[in-house]
Amino acid sequence: MRITKAEATPTRPANADYFTGTVWQEPVITTPQGPPVSALRVHFAPGGRTNWHTHPAGQTLHVLSGTGLVQTRGEPARQIAPGDTVWIPPGEEHWHGARADRAMVHFAMQAVVDGSGAYWLEPVSEAEYAAAGA
Amino acid sequence: MRITKAEATPTRPANADYFTGTVWQEPVITTPQGPPVSALRVHFAPGGRTNWHTHPAGQTLHVLSGTGLVQTRGEPARQIAPGDTVWIPPGEEHWHGARADRAMVHFAMQAVVDGSGAYWLEPVSEAEYAAAGA
Repeated sequence: MRITKAEATPTRPANADYFTGTVWQEPVITTPQGPPVSALRVHFAPGGRTNWHTHPAGQTLHVLSGTGLVQTRGEPARQIAPGDTVWIPPGEEHWHGARADRAMVHFAMQAVVDGSGAYWLEPVSEAEYAAAGA
Repeated sequence: MRITKAEATPTRPANADYFTGTVWQEPVITTPQGPPVSALRVHFAPGGRTNWHTHPAGQTLHVLSGTGLVQTRGEPARQIAPGDTVWIPPGEEHWHGARADRAMVHFAMQAVVDGSGAYWLEPVSEAEYAAAGA
C-alpha cells in the first residue's frame, strides 16, 4: 500500500481560469492511482466558486464543512451543508461554491474520461451569483 | 442533479460478519449512481476494525478524524491520521480500523467489479490487533 501523509500534500490554489475568488485544492486520488477516478478536497473562501462546467462521467460532491451553493443551469440554486451528497449527471451544466458570507469545504469525486474530469465554461457572473442567493 | 441531504441518510451498522467491534457506515456514493465506484464514510469506535480483506480494483481511504491503523498482510501496521490518504492495490490483503483507545473516521472509495467492491476474509485476531500496536 501507499500512504500519502497529510503533511506531504501541499494545498494548491485552484486554476484561476476556472474559478472565481479564493479557492484551494488538495488532491486525494490522482490518476493513474487505481481506477480512472479523481478525488480532491476543495476549500472555497466566501465568494469562491467554480465556473459553469460539466463532467464527462458526472461528479459526486460531499460537503465536509460550511454552507455552500450548487446550481444546475436553468434551475434555482440550492443550499448544501455538511454531510450532504450531490450527484451531477454527465453533461449537466452547473457550478458550486461558497456563499458570499460563508466558507465551504467539499470532497469532489469524478471519473476521468480521455484524461479529463471536467469541461470548463464561463465564470458565474456577479449577477448570477447574487440571483443564486449567495 | 440529485441532492441527498445528511438528515436523509441514516447511519447503519457495519455487517458484523466482516467487522469486529462497533463500526458504523454512511453511504456517499451508491452504484448505479454514475461510474461503478462506491464511497462511504466509516466510523470505527475504539477497537473497531475490518476483517482482513481485498478489493478487486483497489481502494482509497482518506482519514477524516481520529487516529487509526492500516496493515498489509506480512508487513508492519502503520498509523494514519486526518488528511492522510491510503491507496491499497487490487488483491492486497489488508485491514484498517481504530486503535484500541482511539476512534477513527475515514472515507473509503472503491471501484465495483461484477457487483462487488470487496472480498472478505477472516477477522483480525486479538493477537494480530495487539501486535499491530493497537
